[in-house]
Amino acid sequence: MRVLIAGADGYLGWALSQHLAARGHEVAGIDNGARRRWVAEMGSVSAIPIAEPAERRAAFEERFGAPLAWWDGDVRDLGLVRGIFAEWAPEAVVHLGECPSAPYSMIDAEHAIEVQLNNVHGTFGLLAAIHEIRPDAHLLKLGTMGEYGTPDLDIPEGFFEVEYRGRRDTLPFPRQAGSWYHWSKVHGSNNVMFACQVWGLRATDVMQGVVFGTRPGDDAPPPALRTRLDFDEAFGTAINRFCCQAVVGHPLTPFGAGHQRRGFLPLRDSMQCLTLALEHPPEAGEYRVFNQFQEVYSLTDLACRVQRVAGELDLDVEVCPVENPRMEAADHHYAPDHQHLFDLGYEPTSDIESEMRLVLEDLIEHRERIEAHVDVLVPGVRWDGRRERAAWMREPRASAPTP
Amino acid sequence: MRVLIAGADGYLGWALSQHLAARGHEVAGIDNGARRRWVAEMGSVSAIPIAEPAERRAAFEERFGAPLAWWDGDVRDLGLVRGIFAEWAPEAVVHLGECPSAPYSMIDAEHAIEVQLNNVHGTFGLLAAIHEIRPDAHLLKLGTMGEYGTPDLDIPEGFFEVEYRGRRDTLPFPRQAGSWYHWSKVHGSNNVMFACQVWGLRATDVMQGVVFGTRPGDDAPPPALRTRLDFDEAFGTAINRFCCQAVVGHPLTPFGAGHQRRGFLPLRDSMQCLTLALEHPPEAGEYRVFNQFQEVYSLTDLACRVQRVAGELDLDVEVCPVENPRMEAADHHYAPDHQHLFDLGYEPTSDIESEMRLVLEDLIEHRERIEAHVDVLVPGVRWDGRRERAAWMREPRASAPTP
Repeated sequence: MRVLIAGADGYLGWALSQHLAARGHEVAGIDNGARRRWVAEMGSVSAIPIAEPAERRAAFEERFGAPLAWWDGDVRDLGLVRGIFAEWAPEAVVHLGECPSAPYSMIDAEHAIEVQLNNVHGTFGLLAAIHEIRPDAHLLKLGTMGEYGTPDLDIPEGFFEVEYRGRRDTLPFPRQAGSWYHWSKVHGSNNVMFACQVWGLRATDVMQGVVFGTRPGDDAPPPALRTRLDFDEAFGTAINRFCCQAVVGHPLTPFGAGHQRRGFLPLRDSMQCLTLALEHPPEAGEYRVFNQFQEVYSLTDLACRVQRVAGELDLDVEVCPVENPRMEAADHHYAPDHQHLFDLGYEPTSDIESEMRLVLEDLIEHRERIEAHVDVLVPGVRWDGRRERAAWMREPRASAPTP
Repeated sequence: MRVLIAGADGYLGWALSQHLAARGHEVAGIDNGARRRWVAEMGSVSAIPIAEPAERRAAFEERFGAPLAWWDGDVRDLGLVRGIFAEWAPEAVVHLGECPSAPYSMIDAEHAIEVQLNNVHGTFGLLAAIHEIRPDAHLLKLGTMGEYGTPDLDIPEGFFEVEYRGRRDTLPFPRQAGSWYHWSKVHGSNNVMFACQVWGLRATDVMQGVVFGTRPGDDAPPPALRTRLDFDEAFGTAINRFCCQAVVGHPLTPFGAGHQRRGFLPLRDSMQCLTLALEHPPEAGEYRVFNQFQEVYSLTDLACRVQRVAGELDLDVEVCPVENPRMEAADHHYAPDHQHLFDLGYEPTSDIESEMRLVLEDLIEHRERIEAHVDVLVPGVRWDGRRERAAWMREPRASAPTP
C-alpha cells in the first residue's frame, strides 16, 4: 500500500515510516520541521539524538532498500498537497502533522491561535486533496482520548445511541476537551466526519491514548533511524518524562493528587494499531472512531511503576507531586471503550514495566542531554494563564536534585 | 451599557447598532468590510442601497446625538482588538463579525478554509482580548440553529441530561452541522464554552434561526441608516430571497421537496432577543445557549405565504421548486426548545405575513437593482462540489421570467 505520512519527521511519524516500510508498504513523508522548532522554543531537545532529515532518509533507504519519497513542506499549502496527491498517488494518508501539545496551546493567545489554525488548516488541506484527487484514499487521522474529556459516563468509540424525551437516535458522543489543543483536535474530528458525509471520503479517527516508549519494534534502530523522545513539559508525555526524570535522579512529578486516570500505550502498540487501521480500511463514506490505548492507569500509579523499574537499574528516585498546572478533575469516572482495534486483531504489549525498562535503558546513555535541560522537567505553563513553575506539593528529599 | 459590535457594517450589525443606541446604550463598531466584498464576489449587491461607512456614521451621529466609535479593522488582528478593549473598555461584545454563509463555504476548498479560519480566528481574538483586558465583559456570540443539524430527537438549548449505561450526566448536545460554515460556528461555540470554563468568561451563544426583514424597529430608517438586504444564494436568506424574487416576478424557489423545517424570526425580533441577552448578562464563568427563533416553518409553507402576500400587492408569482443544491434530509423531526428568551421577556412578532408585506413594500422601489442581478436568484453552488445552476423541479409557467 502507498502511504503518505504527514508529520513524518515527528515522534510517531518517523517510527511509523519505518514500521510500514518493514511490513512492505511504500512510504512517503511530508514535514515542515515544526516539531524541531517547537521543542527548541520550549528550551529543550530530544533526549535521544536524532539525525537531520536528509541523513534519516539516507539511512532509511539503506535499511529498507527503497527511497523514502519526501517533501519539506506544510500540509496547509494546498497547492503543494494537491501536487503530492497527483504525483505520488497515495492510497492512504496518516495525518500526524498537527501540533500535539496541550501546554504549548495554553502559553498565551498567540500560541492558542497558532495551534488551532495550524491543526484545522492542515487537516482541511489533506481532506481537500483527497476529495479532489484521490477520493478513495483512506485518511487515518490522529486524534486524542483527550477530546472526550472526563464525562461522568462511559465513553463509547465516537458514537452512542441515546434516548431523550422518548425518542432514540445515534449521535456523536459529546466532546469536552480540556485545552485549546484538545479542542483543535475536536474541530478536526468534526471536519473529518463531515467530509465523509458530504464527500463520501473514508476515514479512521484515532482517539489515541498517551504513547510512551523508544522502540517502534523489537530491535533498537541504528542511530540515524531512532525517533525523537521529548521530555519538556509541552512535547514530552507522562511516562517518557518520568523516565527522563528518573535517569537524571530528578523526582518524578505527577500533577496534583495524581488520581487522574488516562489511557496509555507503548510506542510499539501505537505502531501496531495504526497499521491495523491502515490494513483494514473503512468503506467509502465511512467515518469510524477507534479509541486506542492498552489500559487505563492513574498518573501516580505510573510514576510508582517507573520508580520501581528505575530502582532495579540502580536509579533511586522519589515520586514527588507538583501542583497541577492544568484545570482538570482530580477524581473522576473513566471507563472508555476500546474494542474496535481488538476486533481487528490488536494484541497489546502485556508488560508495561518491561517497556519502561527498555526506555530507561535506551535513555541512560543520553543522561547528559537531559541534565543540560533539567529546568524543563517541572511545568511552568499554567491553565490559568500564569507562567510560574509549579510548586512541590511536599518538599523532595534534600538529596534529590531539584530544578 | 458600552457595547462593541464586531461586524457592525453587516445586516444584523448595522441594525443592532441603531437599536441599541435608540435604547440609550453606547455603541462602538468594528468591521473589515468583508461582507460588501463577499456579496460583490457573488456577483450581487444589497437590494436596499446602503451608504458608505463614513456616511452611515454621520447619519448615526445626527440621529442619536452621539458619535459611533468605529474601527475599520479585523477581529483577527489581536493587537488592534487589544487596543480597542484597552481604549474603549466595552462592557459587552456582540460578535457578528463572522462569514455567515453556508453556500459561500461550499464553493471550493479555498472558500471553506477562508470561512473556517476567519471565523475561528476572529472569535478567538475577541475571547483573548476579553480574557486579558476586560474579563467581566459579556460576549454575545451569534451562532446558528444549523449547528444542531436535524437529529431525530428534540433539540434542547445547548445542553441535555443523558442516561447511558446506567449513569447520568449533563453534556453538550451533539452538533451535526451541514456545511463547512456551520461547522465553523460549532468550532467557535466549542471555543467559547471552553473560554468560560478555563478563563471564567461570561458568554451567551445564540443559536439563531433564519432572520428576515428590512425593519429593525417600527419605522423605516432614513436612507443612510438602512441596513443591507441580500438576495444572492450565499448571503440572502430564505424569506428575504423569496421577497426579492416576488418583487421582480421571478418564481419563488424552495429547494427540493421544500419539506425542510427551520426556525425563522423577523429582524425586529432578532434585535429584541439580542438586546434581552445583553441587558440580562450571564454570571461570570457561565456559558449559556439560547435557541433564538419565533416559530418553525417549512420552506414551502414560507414560499406560499410570500406568494399570498405578494398577490395582495398585485405581484403575481409562482412557487416553483428547484433541485436542492444542499445535502440535507428532505423530511425530518424538528422540535427545538426555545424557552430561555421567553423567560427573559421575549414577545415575538405575532404576524409573520405583515412582516413579509413590509419587506415587499420596502423592496418594490428597488426592483431595478434586483432585476440587474436576476441571475443570482437560482442557486449554483452545490454541496456535491458541482458549480451548476439548480434545475427546476417542474417548468415554471412560460409567462414568468426565468433566469
